[in-house]
Amino acid sequence: MSPVPGLRGVGLLGGGVIGGGWAARFVLNGVDVQVFDPDPDAPRKLDEVLANARRACRRLTMAPLPPEGAVRFVGSAGEAADGVDLVQESAPERLDLKQALLSAAAEAAPASVVIASSTSGLLPSALQSGMSHPERLVVGHPFNPVYLLPLVEVVGGAQTTPAARERAADVYRSVGMRPLVLSTEIDGFVADRLLEALWREALWLVEGSVATVEEIDDAIRFGAGLRWSFMGTFLTYRIAGGEAGMRHFMAQFGPALQWPWSRLVDVPELTDELLDRIVTQSEAQAAGRTVRELEAQRDDALIAVLQGLRSVGVGAGEVLDDYERTLFERAGVGQQELLDGWPLRVVDRIVPTEWVDYNGHTNDSRYLELSSNGVDAFMRFVGIDAAYLASGGSYFTVESHLTFVEQCRAGDAVHVDLTLLDHDEKRMHVFTWIRRGLRGGDGGDGGDGGDGVLLGTAEHLLLHVDAGTGKAAAAAPAVLDALERVRAAHASISRPPAAGRHVGQPRSR
Amino acid sequence: MSPVPGLRGVGLLGGGVIGGGWAARFVLNGVDVQVFDPDPDAPRKLDEVLANARRACRRLTMAPLPPEGAVRFVGSAGEAADGVDLVQESAPERLDLKQALLSAAAEAAPASVVIASSTSGLLPSALQSGMSHPERLVVGHPFNPVYLLPLVEVVGGAQTTPAARERAADVYRSVGMRPLVLSTEIDGFVADRLLEALWREALWLVEGSVATVEEIDDAIRFGAGLRWSFMGTFLTYRIAGGEAGMRHFMAQFGPALQWPWSRLVDVPELTDELLDRIVTQSEAQAAGRTVRELEAQRDDALIAVLQGLRSVGVGAGEVLDDYERTLFERAGVGQQELLDGWPLRVVDRIVPTEWVDYNGHTNDSRYLELSSNGVDAFMRFVGIDAAYLASGGSYFTVESHLTFVEQCRAGDAVHVDLTLLDHDEKRMHVFTWIRRGLRGGDGGDGGDGGDGVLLGTAEHLLLHVDAGTGKAAAAAPAVLDALERVRAAHASISRPPAAGRHVGQPRSR
Repeated sequence: MSPVPGLRGVGLLGGGVIGGGWAARFVLNGVDVQVFDPDPDAPRKLDEVLANARRACRRLTMAPLPPEGAVRFVGSAGEAADGVDLVQESAPERLDLKQALLSAAAEAAPASVVIASSTSGLLPSALQSGMSHPERLVVGHPFNPVYLLPLVEVVGGAQTTPAARERAADVYRSVGMRPLVLSTEIDGFVADRLLEALWREALWLVEGSVATVEEIDDAIRFGAGLRWSFMGTFLTYRIAGGEAGMRHFMAQFGPALQWPWSRLVDVPELTDELLDRIVTQSEAQAAGRTVRELEAQRDDALIAVLQGLRSVGVGAGEVLDDYERTLFERAGVGQQELLDGWPLRVVDRIVPTEWVDYNGHTNDSRYLELSSNGVDAFMRFVGIDAAYLASGGSYFTVESHLTFVEQCRAGDAVHVDLTLLDHDEKRMHVFTWIRRGLRGGDGGDGGDGGDGVLLGTAEHLLLHVDAGTGKAAAAAPAVLDALERVRAAHASISRPPAAGRHVGQPRSR
Repeated sequence: MSPVPGLRGVGLLGGGVIGGGWAARFVLNGVDVQVFDPDPDAPRKLDEVLANARRACRRLTMAPLPPEGAVRFVGSAGEAADGVDLVQESAPERLDLKQALLSAAAEAAPASVVIASSTSGLLPSALQSGMSHPERLVVGHPFNPVYLLPLVEVVGGAQTTPAARERAADVYRSVGMRPLVLSTEIDGFVADRLLEALWREALWLVEGSVATVEEIDDAIRFGAGLRWSFMGTFLTYRIAGGEAGMRHFMAQFGPALQWPWSRLVDVPELTDELLDRIVTQSEAQAAGRTVRELEAQRDDALIAVLQGLRSVGVGAGEVLDDYERTLFERAGVGQQELLDGWPLRVVDRIVPTEWVDYNGHTNDSRYLELSSNGVDAFMRFVGIDAAYLASGGSYFTVESHLTFVEQCRAGDAVHVDLTLLDHDEKRMHVFTWIRRGLRGGDGGDGGDGGDGVLLGTAEHLLLHVDAGTGKAAAAAPAVLDALERVRAAHASISRPPAAGRHVGQPRSR
């Protein structure tokens, strides 16, 4: 039985980039597919898309994916449509070819089976003409890669019933997509019309040698493209209008429609009626959120996107990565000042929203991340910099123990204080306190020595390793000297009660 | 001294949304700014932008930001330009107003000081006319919010020297931005021309009642907008062309330029020369990466963006979140099957690229995250589902101990096995093994009972808490029954040597 309720199987007409993407989307959700594609290379191509998709989905989610559905190649459109609950056609953009395939599938499939076309812009009314039971024909227009991008435009033709559109939308939703059900059919639908306009302007820029294709791409991906990943143009412009909102923005930038800011000069007139419509729809879209709230949501989403891209070192994420290295380098100057306060304040930050899971809790691992970042800062402090790492020496954590005392919430200011418990030539034994509260006094009460509310503690044993041999080895003399100085400064700090505990040990303090 | 080398201070003409954004960008990098804005509300508005920016930057990066620069309001453009290394004008889009401000600043600033305008589309040649030392006038066009988005278009006019453009680009780079230095001036520059084309088409769609502003925004943010956050249109289309590349894509979708896919119908002719130029530039942009490599990079970036957006519950991230909940629900059926293999296999996944830091190591905290995810899975297994949590009962981790044995790399298949060491009405004591290797045999050798290479272990003590009282309380009988069954099944597993260790304890096995 299919793990997707009510979906026994899907018939696919065409197994190229888009058809293969559909195959992957369904198969990875445990749904069997029957594929018709006359290209003798189709099985190989589909296998390649499926391999990409399998890799991507295992990275995308930790949620348990069901056992994969089966892929079966068949000899005709009719066979592909036999015994399935949805037919999805993804043939080349030729009306006659698509009509023939859709009609053949319609002959084989009962009237209850929805038949969908992936066309980028042909009208559903044209696709359904001459088909048996044309009322179940919809356009279901996806975006590449189909196995990752959620959008699918659902468009009906003149003869399509609303029920067919809803049925298609339900199927797409069940495999993790976001259907956009349109009420009006139009060439190119909504998304491709927007993309086509931008594309036409981009071609003019290349044609006029104003910019190269790479410069044009950069003009998007380092700027507006980052916003577009979560917020379209209208909401973006509403925010740009500031406290005065959408009408103010239109007054400010409406005149640009008459300026030569595009080679595409056939523009709509901003009548009062059109302005009213935009303002009213923009109000509905904002759903009561003030500009300040929208700004905060925009900023949080931008940060999440930038941090995500940094993790893969791509585009704006690479810019952020370079910037952070610069900040660390600049901060390196005068770090000795830190030694004035004891124990060492090694981390000072605000808990980001993405650390909080859907239950409202910070995942335990974030405490270790905070403490681990603190240990990294401490290592830079004692001279383990990029040059030292390049020379082959490094400390690795071999063991950690954590206690969890209080939860933290997004927006909390937290800091980490560190003390060096012990060290020798190869080992470093440190203890950290994770606390809520803004950086306050210098602490130093001789016990746990800090201000703020204790959230948790961590204890780490690190081993110095020579990367060449992969074995434990003595750290460089300069590092050992720095550790000596820290130990001397920390001599007055008494051993924290949580140090040396094992899990479940009765509390003795 | 300014923490940014060679940048003593910046003069800002205009302190609205854009000018305030510039103020934030500089001040948070430790650079002092002098602001001229005749609006009596300007200080309040700038304070608000600065508050947003401060919050955003503390979330954006853990790198140490320098002490903030100072903001000083002054009474004229000349005063703002006095003693600074850059003047940045962000006044309303009126040529005469901007010219007057820029000229006043140019009188006050030595010829070596670069004067930049944030104009969205006015030509630098027009802005610099009549100014003293016009060769240092550049356009530096940023994007909202200026304190987060890296893009800034740098454009010179007829009299501008290349050195002035480079100097401006260096300053922008030093505060974490990504300058795009254009060789040609054109109304609207590159980015706003692309945005304007899309915007004009969007207005046609609203004008024709084809879609609402929200539907238009959704057509971007659930689809192409996700790609645009790291990859522009040309590289996207190169991939869409498949193995045959850019020329194939142009042959496939070139005809669409003649189709009514946009109201903007003044399109460039695809001459052989234009085609050759696009193909050649596209080759240069791909820089030797094959379509398969580009696809993998695209997918990794998309995953990072989707996971980032999920963490803030926005747009496509919300779609992913809903989808994962569905997957967990669907997988809940028949979970009892898991009991057939001992110890419990609670996590099975591929290490994502974003777990690996710039040194090539997986951050320690990811081991705890893996184990913690395993404990979550185990809790669902014994009946702690959404309904149980909603009723007010939950387990919280109070203590964890980890050992780190081997590093893992991006792409490694890892799994987590779990055993229940001990439990009573309120407490649960579990132990996990984190291993590399694909899911293999059922393990169960009576010791650590698993296949694969051991990467680390974790031991957790959890306490059952009543959310109403905030105190430890007994778990529900059904949960305790499930724990009993697991204990009985785990009775044959001997206590792991790493259990009960404290940090630094000599190894006895």
